Amino acid sequence: MSKVSVATKRMVLGTPFRSDKLGHTLLPKRIALPVFASDAMSSVAYAPQEIFLVLSVAGLSAYTYTPWIGLAVAVVMVVVVASYRQNVHAYPSGGGDYEVATVNLGPRAGLTVGSALLVDYILTVAVSISSAAENIGSAIPFVEQHRVLFCIAAIVLITSINLRGIRESGTAFAIPTYAFIAGMVVMLVWGFIQIFILGTDVSSDTADFGVKAENSHLVGIAFVFLIARAFSSGCAALTGVEAISNGVPAFEKPKSRNAATTLLLLGGIAVVLLMGIIVLAREIGAKYVENPAKDLIGAPADYQQKSLVAQLAHAVFRDFTPGFYFITIVTALILVLAANTAFNGFPVLGSVLAQDRYLPRQLHTRGDRLAFSNGILFLAIAAIVFVAAFGAQVTALIQLYIVGVFVSFTLSQIGMVRHWTRHLRTETDPSARNRMQRSRVINSIGLLMTGTVLIIVLITKFLAGAWIAIVTMVAIYILMQLIHRHYASVQTELDNTDFETILPSRTHSVVLVSKLHLPTKRALAYARATRPDNLEAITVNVDDRDTRRLVAEWEGSDISIPLKVIASPYREITRPVIDYVRRLRRESPRDVITVFIPEYVVGHWWEQILHNQSALRLKGRLLFEPGVMVTSVPWQLSSSDRRKNRDRVYNAPGDTRRGMVPGDGPSGPADT
Amino acid sequence: MSKVSVATKRMVLGTPFRSDKLGHTLLPKRIALPVFASDAMSSVAYAPQEIFLVLSVAGLSAYTYTPWIGLAVAVVMVVVVASYRQNVHAYPSGGGDYEVATVNLGPRAGLTVGSALLVDYILTVAVSISSAAENIGSAIPFVEQHRVLFCIAAIVLITSINLRGIRESGTAFAIPTYAFIAGMVVMLVWGFIQIFILGTDVSSDTADFGVKAENSHLVGIAFVFLIARAFSSGCAALTGVEAISNGVPAFEKPKSRNAATTLLLLGGIAVVLLMGIIVLAREIGAKYVENPAKDLIGAPADYQQKSLVAQLAHAVFRDFTPGFYFITIVTALILVLAANTAFNGFPVLGSVLAQDRYLPRQLHTRGDRLAFSNGILFLAIAAIVFVAAFGAQVTALIQLYIVGVFVSFTLSQIGMVRHWTRHLRTETDPSARNRMQRSRVINSIGLLMTGTVLIIVLITKFLAGAWIAIVTMVAIYILMQLIHRHYASVQTELDNTDFETILPSRTHSVVLVSKLHLPTKRALAYARATRPDNLEAITVNVDDRDTRRLVAEWEGSDISIPLKVIASPYREITRPVIDYVRRLRRESPRDVITVFIPEYVVGHWWEQILHNQSALRLKGRLLFEPGVMVTSVPWQLSSSDRRKNRDRVYNAPGDTRRGMVPGDGPSGPADT
Repeated sequence: MSKVSVATKRMVLGTPFRSDKLGHTLLPKRIALPVFASDAMSSVAYAPQEIFLVLSVAGLSAYTYTPWIGLAVAVVMVVVVASYRQNVHAYPSGGGDYEVATVNLGPRAGLTVGSALLVDYILTVAVSISSAAENIGSAIPFVEQHRVLFCIAAIVLITSINLRGIRESGTAFAIPTYAFIAGMVVMLVWGFIQIFILGTDVSSDTADFGVKAENSHLVGIAFVFLIARAFSSGCAALTGVEAISNGVPAFEKPKSRNAATTLLLLGGIAVVLLMGIIVLAREIGAKYVENPAKDLIGAPADYQQKSLVAQLAHAVFRDFTPGFYFITIVTALILVLAANTAFNGFPVLGSVLAQDRYLPRQLHTRGDRLAFSNGILFLAIAAIVFVAAFGAQVTALIQLYIVGVFVSFTLSQIGMVRHWTRHLRTETDPSARNRMQRSRVINSIGLLMTGTVLIIVLITKFLAGAWIAIVTMVAIYILMQLIHRHYASVQTELDNTDFETILPSRTHSVVLVSKLHLPTKRALAYARATRPDNLEAITVNVDDRDTRRLVAEWEGSDISIPLKVIASPYREITRPVIDYVRRLRRESPRDVITVFIPEYVVGHWWEQILHNQSALRLKGRLLFEPGVMVTSVPWQLSSSDRRKNRDRVYNAPGDTRRGMVPGDGPSGPADT
Repeated sequence: MSKVSVATKRMVLGTPFRSDKLGHTLLPKRIALPVFASDAMSSVAYAPQEIFLVLSVAGLSAYTYTPWIGLAVAVVMVVVVASYRQNVHAYPSGGGDYEVATVNLGPRAGLTVGSALLVDYILTVAVSISSAAENIGSAIPFVEQHRVLFCIAAIVLITSINLRGIRESGTAFAIPTYAFIAGMVVMLVWGFIQIFILGTDVSSDTADFGVKAENSHLVGIAFVFLIARAFSSGCAALTGVEAISNGVPAFEKPKSRNAATTLLLLGGIAVVLLMGIIVLAREIGAKYVENPAKDLIGAPADYQQKSLVAQLAHAVFRDFTPGFYFITIVTALILVLAANTAFNGFPVLGSVLAQDRYLPRQLHTRGDRLAFSNGILFLAIAAIVFVAAFGAQVTALIQLYIVGVFVSFTLSQIGMVRHWTRHLRTETDPSARNRMQRSRVINSIGLLMTGTVLIIVLITKFLAGAWIAIVTMVAIYILMQLIHRHYASVQTELDNTDFETILPSRTHSVVLVSKLHLPTKRALAYARATRPDNLEAITVNVDDRDTRRLVAEWEGSDISIPLKVIASPYREITRPVIDYVRRLRRESPRDVITVFIPEYVVGHWWEQILHNQSALRLKGRLLFEPGVMVTSVPWQLSSSDRRKNRDRVYNAPGDTRRGMVPGDGPSGPADT
C-alpha cells in the first residue's frame, strides 16, 4: 500500500490541485459592483413603469399611491440586502441560495431553489431583452414595430458571443454600468433642479392625456388587491440582488466583507434610482398603460407609448436630444448586460447541479466547452420561446418573472435562520453568539418579508401568468429528480454486482479487415505488438469480387496472420461480426476478446460522412457484448492536421464572476 | 504463402460466398410483370391527358391529332421495348443503363446516366403521387382541395413503410396491377361496345363544354411546335420501361429470355391502354385543359376538372357508380405502386454508385439498414420539395420528368450500339454475327428514336421546366464527381505513404480512471491481461475533493497499478490527457500507446446522454494523435439488455426485384 502511495505522489504531474491557486485577477469593489449589479440595477428600467401600469386600471387618481408603493419596494430591498449580507458572510464559497437551502433544509429544498433559479435565468433573458427592445423602440420606431424579431436577433447575438467563450472583462461591465448610473443620476437631478429650483415646466408628452380607468371606483378588497399587484410588479426591482452571493470567491480579500459592502452599495443605488424615477415620473405627469390605443384619453391615433425611462429622458432633456439618446442607449445596454449575466450564471448553476448529479454529469466539467455550449443553447432557445410566446411584452413576461426569485429568496432565508439556530446550539463565545443572534433576527425579518412578498405575488399573479413559471419549475424539478434517480440506480448496480477479480485467462485479438491497405497493416502491426495469445484477421464477405481480390492479395503478401472470411448472406457487416465474436466467447468464455478496427481520421465533418460509418456502427454494437474490448487504430489522413491543434484554452462563461480567470495562451501549464 | 492460403480456406466460416446462392424465390413472369410494370403502366394515367391538355391551346379542332400523337408515342414505345430486349440479353446482371453506359462509353457517361436516374426517381415519386391525388380527387373533392397536403402525407406514409424494411411481396404488386389492367380493359371494351355496338350515347360531362383556344390559328412552325410538345408530354408513357433491365437477376431461368418476354408483354399492354384511352376519350368528347375556370366555355363556375381516366370511367359507368370508384381506386393504387418502385430503385442505384465510389461507401452495404434509410429519406424529402414547389400539379411536374428518362435511354442506346460494334470485331461465328448485327440495327433505330425524342423534349420543354431537372442532374453529377475525387485522393495518399513495417518496440498502456468502481476495475484487469510493457492508471484532477477521495481509495485498495494524477488548471479533461499522451510519445517515440477507456453501456438513448459524454469526446480527440490506440472497455448496465438482441434480418427495399430474398427468422444462417 505504501508503495502505491509513494508512486502516486511521485508521479503526480504538473502542480497538483492547481485549480485552487487561480485567483490572481480577483475583483476590486469598483469592478465587482458593475459585474454583479447589472441585473439588479437594470430592473429599475421596468419595475417603476409596471407600478404605473397596474395602477392605471383604477385611473389617474391611483397614481398618488406610486411613491408609497415605491417606498414599500425600497423597504423590501433594504431588508433583502441586509439579509443577503448575512448569507455572504456565512457562505463565502459562492454556492449561493442553492447551497444555503441544500445544507440547511435538505436536497429537496436545494433542488427547488435550483429549479426556481434556472427558470429565473431564462426569464431574466426574456424580460431584459424585451425591455431593452422597448427602450430602443422608444427612440427608433422601426425597432418597436418589429420587437419580437429584434429580441430574437439580440438573443442570438448574445448567444453566439457567449458560445465563442469570450472572457468577461470587468471593464466591459464597468463602462456601461457606471454610464447608466451617471446618466440616470444626471437625469433625475437635472429634472428636479428644473422643477423645484428653476421652476421650468418639465412635462411628459403624456402629461395632457387622460387615463381611461377600467374601474375608477374600486373599493375594499378589490382596491387592496390592485395595490398589492402594483407592489408585486414593483418587486421586480429586486431580481438579481442575490447575484453577489454566488460571486463571493471573485472578490478581493477580505472577500465576504467586500462582497457585503458591494451589496450595500448596490442596494443603495437601486433604491435611489427607483424612488427618483417614480417621484420624477409623477412630477412630469408621465403615464404608462397596458393598451395605449384604448386606455389613453386624448392621445393621437398613431401615438406610440414610450417606456417610462424614455418619457423621463424626453421630458428632462427636451432641448437636448443627445441626452435622450444617451439615456436610451445606456438603459438598453445595461439591460443587455443583465441578460448576459444569465448566460454566465445558467451554465455555472448547471455545473453545480451536475456535480450533485441532478443534471448530466458532463456539465460539471467546467473546462468542457461543449457542456457549456449546451447550457447556453438551452437557455437561448428557452428565452426565445418565452419572448415569442409573449410577443416580447415586458408586462406579460413580468407576471412570470418574480415567482422564482422569491421562492429562492424565501427558501434561502429559512435556511439562514436554521443555519444560525444550529450554530447557536454549539457556539459558546458570547460575542459570537451576539453576532449570530443579530444575524438570525435580520434573516428572520428577511424571511418574514420575502415570504410575505411571495404570498402576495402568488395571489396577485398566479392566474396572470405565474402559474406558467411554476409549471416550468415543477417540470424541471421532476426532470432533475429523474436524472438523479438514474445515476443513483446505476451506482447501486455497480455496488451490488460481484466482480471476479480473477484475471482473464487469455487474450484473443481479432483485426477487422476490409482491404489490405496501410491502415489495415498498421492495425495488424499494433495488434501484434500487444502480443495476444491468439491473433487473427477477419473480413466480412459483403461483395464476392472484393473478397476474392482481398484473399488473393493476402495470400500474395508476407503477412503471417491468418485471414478468415465470414459469410454475410444478407450483405451486412455488423451482425456477422457480432455472431462470430459471440461464438468465440462461447468457445472460450474466459478469454478477453479485443476487436481491432482500423479507422481513417479526417479533418472535415463531410469527410467523416464518407468514411468509417460502418466501423462506427460496428463499434457501437460491439460494446453491448460482454467480455469484448473494442480498439480503434487510427490512420491520420493528411486532412486531419487541421483539427489536431484546434483546441484552445476555453474561457467558460461566468469565470470572471467566479474568480476563475486563467492566463492567456494556447498551451496551458498542465505539463510544465 | 501456402500455409496462409490453407489457413485461410480452412477457416472460412459459414458457406462462403453464400450471397450467390440466394435465388430460391425468383419471380415467374406472371409475378415479374406486376412487380416491374407498375411504373410504366401507371403512366397511362397521366400521359394521354397531357396530350389533350397541350393541344387545347389550339382549340378543340386540334384534338383530331390526338390519335396520331398517341400512335407516335406507341411507335416510340415499341422501338424502346425492342431496344431494351437487346439490353436485357446483353447485360443480364441487372446493372441496367448505368452499367451499359459505363462499360461502353466510360465512367462519365455512366455517371450522367446515374445522375439522370436519381433525378428521375425523385420525379417518379412526385409525378405519380400527384397524379394519384388528382385521380382520387376526381372522386373525393376534399382531396382535390388539399392536394399538396394529401401528397405529402402519402409520401410520408410510403416512406415510413419503406423505412421499416418490409419485404416486397409479389402478390402485393400483382393484385392492384392486374386489377388495374382488368379494370381499364373492361372500361375500354364496355365503352366501345356501348358506342359502336349498342349505339348508346356515352358522353363525358365535359362533352358540351367548349375550349377557349389561346390561339386557334397556329400555323407553320408554331403548330409543329405545339404538336411536338404534345408528343413530348405523351412520351411520359415511356417512363419506367427501363425498370426490367435492372431486374433481370430476379427472373426465373432462362432469366434474359423471360425478362425480354415480360418486357414485350409490358409494352403491348401499355400501348393498348394508351391508344384505347385516347380513342375513347375522343369518342366521348372528353376535354382536359390547363386552367378549367378560364379555358372551358360553358362550364359551371364551380366545375372541378376530373382526370381524363376519371372522365372516361364516369361516362362509361354512368349508371354503375362502383365501376367509377373501382377505376379511380386501382388507378391511384398503381400510381402509388409506381412511387414505391422509386423507393426501391433509388437506394439500389445508390448502392451501385457507392460501389464505384461516387456516393458514400457505406451505401454499398446492402444489409446496412441505416444506409438504405438515408437514401429513402433523401428521396422522400426531395420528392416532397418538388411536390410542394409545383403545387402537386402533374402538368407542371411532367415538364421536368422525361428529360432524365430520355438522357438515360439515349446514352444506353449509344452504349448498346458500341457494344455490338465491339463484339462484332472479334466474333467470327456467322449466326452469332447475324444476331449481333440485327441487334445493332435495332439499337441503332432505338438510338435514333430516343435521341430524336430527347431533342424534341429539350426544345419543347426546356423553358417550361426541364431546365430545373437538368440543373439538378448537373448538381448531382458534380457532387458525385467530388466524392469520387475525395476517395481517389485518399487512395493515393494511402498508396504513397511509406509505412515502416517494423513492429513497434514496446506497448505502453494507460487506463483512464475517474472513479474506482467496477467498470474501472474491469478495465484495469483487461488492460493487464494484454500484458503491456508499461501499465499505469491516470486520472484528471477536475475536482479536488473527488480526486483526493479517489487517491485515498486507490491507496486503500489492493491494486498494484500506479495511479497518476494529472493537473487540469482549467478543469477540462480532454486536453490534459492529450498533452500527457503526447509527452509519452515524445519520450519514447517507438512505443505504441494504448489508452483504455472504461465505458458504461446503456439501453436508452437518453441514458446515453447521461453517460460517457466526456469519454466519447476524448476518444474522438485521441484518434488524431499518431501512434495511439484507443480501447473501449464496456461495462454493460442492465438496461443495455434491451438493445442487445434488437438486430433483426433487414429486408432492404428492392430485394425482391433484385432477386435477393432471404428466408425469414431473426437469426440468419451466418454461423451454421
